[in-house]
Order: sequence, then structure tokens, then C-alpha cells
Amino acid sequence: MQIVTNFKPLDSNFEQHVRESFAKQQLMTTLGATLEKVEAGAIDIRLPVRPEISQQHGFVHAGAIAAIADSACGYAAFSLMGADSGVLAVEFKINLLAPGAGDYLLARGRVIRAGRTLTVCQAEVIANTGGEEKPVALMQATIMNVQGRAGVVG
Amino acid sequence: MQIVTNFKPLDSNFEQHVRESFAKQQLMTTLGATLEKVEAGAIDIRLPVRPEISQQHGFVHAGAIAAIADSACGYAAFSLMGADSGVLAVEFKINLLAPGAGDYLLARGRVIRAGRTLTVCQAEVIANTGGEEKPVALMQATIMNVQGRAGVVG
Amino acid sequence: MQIVTNFKPLDSNFEQHVRESFAKQQLMTTLGATLEKVEAGAIDIRLPVRPEISQQHGFVHAGAIAAIADSACGYAAFSLMGADSGVLAVEFKINLLAPGAGDYLLARGRVIRAGRTLTVCQAEVIANTGGEEKPVALMQATIMNVQGRAGVVG
Amino acid sequence: MQIVTNFKPLDSNFEQHVRESFAKQQLMTTLGATLEKVEAGAIDIRLPVRPEISQQHGFVHAGAIAAIADSACGYAAFSLMGADSGVLAVEFKINLLAPGAGDYLLARGRVIRAGRTLTVCQAEVIANTGGEEKPVALMQATIMNVQGRAGVVG
Repeated sequence: MQIVTNFKPLDSNFEQHVRESFAKQQLMTTLGATLEKVEAGAIDIRLPVRPEISQQHGFVHAGAIAAIADSACGYAAFSLMGADSGVLAVEFKINLLAPGAGDYLLARGRVIRAGRTLTVCQAEVIANTGGEEKPVALMQATIMNVQGRAGVVG
Repeated sequence: MQIVTNFKPLDSNFEQHVRESFAKQQLMTTLGATLEKVEAGAIDIRLPVRPEISQQHGFVHAGAIAAIADSACGYAAFSLMGADSGVLAVEFKINLLAPGAGDYLLARGRVIRAGRTLTVCQAEVIANTGGEEKPVALMQATIMNVQGRAGVVG
Repeated sequence: MQIVTNFKPLDSNFEQHVRESFAKQQLMTTLGATLEKVEAGAIDIRLPVRPEISQQHGFVHAGAIAAIADSACGYAAFSLMGADSGVLAVEFKINLLAPGAGDYLLARGRVIRAGRTLTVCQAEVIANTGGEEKPVALMQATIMNVQGRAGVVG
Repeated sequence: MQIVTNFKPLDSNFEQHVRESFAKQQLMTTLGATLEKVEAGAIDIRLPVRPEISQQHGFVHAGAIAAIADSACGYAAFSLMGADSGVLAVEFKINLLAPGAGDYLLARGRVIRAGRTLTVCQAEVIANTGGEEKPVALMQATIMNVQGRAGVVG
């Protein structure tokens, strides 16, 4: 799907709101993930490869890969919403393409279609080893725009 | 799908092999997850709810939920394989049904169909609050049986 | 996931409304599919195996399997909604477990969780050959409750 | 995911083999779908919008959309395999982005990663109305390369 790139955000402070919300996702800190690019409809999250997030063969666990891809999708959707919105993951599907190994993984979440209630996103996860990129996973996700629910802002 | 319950494992030591492999999944330790029930084709993984695995609203992050559901599916598949096999997650899809809140989450991975190369599993994740269960997520996963690949046993 | 069975429908005429809506799905007629059981949150659709719906090896095409599973999920969700609601499929994921062969296929759509806006359903598809059942596919689907959109009722 | 475009097919007659196999998919004929572009790793299937493939609101049924997307993915994978291979759909997931309406739908199946046993594909489905394109659906699919199984060639 050709990635749309000219989204107009409803919230002019979207970058600040994305960064504040990401900082509250303690799982990201626990995993060691950091927020890189924050653009309207496009979010990159970086995850250094380290033993603490491994599965039994020493590769990055698919759950950690899914976690950064899910957050990248969620914040890509959130970046296009109004300042009073909250996001919830409805569902996602991920294909693992290659073992998670290298220096770091990068999840690139992109909005495919932004609706009033639901936003469909895609995330590719690549492994970077000495500057060379290799596809590791591909996610397709549905994100819900929640308004007026106590405790669900950001 | 009616869960099959009379699987005959190929590996009579499957429980030991599942527990040894799970102990190598450092992500599970990082998240605080523990392996509970280990039966042929049926694995339960428990994840206490705590701030270190939260998303921005204080609920358990969908990535942590997916991680225990994926491991429960992978080991349910692995429990039916020969002792020299390794498992890799091909893909999974998860629907989030309710916020991850309560005392702990429990992912119940079950084999739906065990093939020579691919095994299809399902995992339900429930939240337990004071003994009461509530459905939190539902996963459908495809697991690959890998043999003879260096570094991929268990 | 334990299938809930005690749903209380909002629309006391839900069976009639499901049957009327199904009759408008011309694809079902084209495929040869018929609506069997209609209960609150539980719909069965039957599809006789015949050459007109085959793929290249002579089995039922995965698209035809997905079509009856999707309709079974959609109407399972619809059966629990108010009389003025319409349903739209948000997304679905299906695993093919065995070739679609036999006398007929039966898709059993069941509601897993009914929300105000989104309903999560599961469908198993079995093949019936001389009275014996064999699992053929498993679907997990998200259905949207649409109200007040022109042309989207039923 | 950046679509790879420089695949080298193993079978120099892949186009002929794809076209022969597609001609055996009687469901495609029943739906009115035709095979358009056949390149290595890239297949387009066209489906004119007509009442016989509709759902209850008059749009193209999600099952028909899934059917052409699944075939486009399957043949994109098949185009890169050896002449003695057969393909089976392992699983697919599809998001419906907009109602299936217009003059015709076009499913563009593309290989994301071609493995020895499993190939991961993506298909976008667009609606064409008077020459203008609109995204309708996005699929992510896993296809299996089957060799030496009776009746499963093509």
C-alpha cells in the first residue's frame, strides 16, 4: 500500500503530546526502546538488541518486536488525532520475517487510513547491523480513537 | 474451535524441555512472567500486573500481553514436537478485548492443529482480579517446527 | 476462548432481520451458501462443495471459505445489535487448517465479546463428509456497529 | 514495507504456469475475476463490481475482496517457485478500508519475503471509478510452498 505522507494533524502540538505519552509507557523503558522520528502519521521506535529481551535462541523475542511495532502504530494514529483523544489498540497481526538480531531494531509505524473512529496502520520492523538494514517483521494494526473515557487520554 | 485435549506428545520429556527453554527466554524474566501449567498441547503463562509493563494509561501494554500469548502458543506447539525440534513464530494476530488490569494476567495457549511443519494455536488471555476472571485478549498464531537449523533447538 | 452462550439480544426480531439481510447478500447465493442456525450471537452458514467455488487443486477456494466465515461472524455480531444498526467488517484473519473438501462446509460464527462499537467474533469452519466433521479453518474477526449511516442498515 | 521488485524467478515459464493455474480456479470465473499483470513476485487481479458479488448494502462482499487478494498473494508467491511446486494459503489477514464500490476492484499481490517453505505477501485492493483509484483493503498473507504432495501442483 502506498504510504500516504501528506497528513494534516488536527493537533498542532502532536509531537509534544506523542513524546509525553510515550514517556508514560513504562514497558518501553523496561525494554530499552526509545522514540525516534515523530511526524504526522509516521513514528519510528528504536530497540537496541540485548539479552534482556531475548527468546530461547538468543534472538529478540517476537513479543518485544510486536511491542515496538504496536507502539509505533498507535502513536502514528495518535499523531493525527485531536488533543483530547486517547488511543487503544483494537488488534494487530504480525509476520516475523527473519530473526531479530543485529545492533538494533527499528519499528516504522505508518498510517494507512485514518477514520473518525478507527485508524489502520502498518509497521515494518527492520534490523540494523553496522548500518545495513534487513526486514524483520511486518505488522498490520487497527487503532481506536477513544474520546471522553476517563483515564484514556494520550 | 473445540480445543483438542488428547494430544500424544512425541517427546516423553516434553515438560522438562519446555521448562528449560522457557527459562532461556530472558524477556519473560524481564516482564516478570512465569510458566504455570505445562501439558501436551496446553501451556499457561502468568504475568503479574505491575507498572514496569504498562502503557500510557496504566494498563498492561498490548506488547506484553502479546508476548505471553505468543510464548504460550509457541510452547504449546513445542510440547508436541520431537526432542530435536525448535520452534519459531511465523505470525500471530491478537484482538484486545478489555484493558489489561487486575492482579495478574494468564495466557492459555492451546494447539488447534499440529502439522508436520506448521502448528496453529490459539491463546486466550484473562485478567484475574481477586479470583475473578475476565477475558482480555484472544490470539491466533502459526508456529513453525524447525529441524536441523543451527542454534534453533527448543 | 470459552464461547459465551447466554447473550440477550436487543432486537427481539433479530432472527427475521438476520435472515432478511442474509437474503440480500447476493454473493452467498452466487456461492451457493445458505443460512442455517440463527441464534443470539451464534450463526451457522452452510456451503456445499462444488466445482464452481474451487481453487486450482479442486478444493474449495480459501476466499469462499473466508466469505462464509466472515458472513457468519458479521451476522453473529448483528444478531445482538439494535434493529436500526448496520454491520461492517473491520478486519478478519483466517488460518486454513485443511483442504476444503467433503460434502459441505459449515461456518460457525460466534460472538466472543460484544462492545458498543466493536464486536469480536470467532468462526470455525468444518468440512462434513458423510456426517463426519473435520476442522478446515479458524477465523478471528472484528465487526463494527454502524448507526445513522445512509445505506448501512442490516 | 518497501516492496522488493528485482526478484529472479526459478521457473522461466512462470507466467504461463501462473496463467494456467489461475484458469483452473473456478471461483475466479464464478466471481468474474480476471488475471491482469503477471510479473515475478507481482500479480494483479481485476474484479468488476456487479450485484452477484454484493453484500447486504450493495457493496462488494468482503469475502469476494479477500478471494482476489488471496489469489493475488498466492500467485505472487507461486511466480517465484520452481515449476514442480504447488502453493497453499496458510493464513491471511485483511483490513477493509472503504466500501467496495466503483467500476472494478484491483488486487495487487506482492511478495514481501520469499523463503524456502513460506512466502509472506501483501496485497492492496483498490477501487477504480472512472480512472480514479481509492484504497479498499489491505491484506497480509502467508503462503506455503508444497512439493511432492499428490494433487498439489500449481
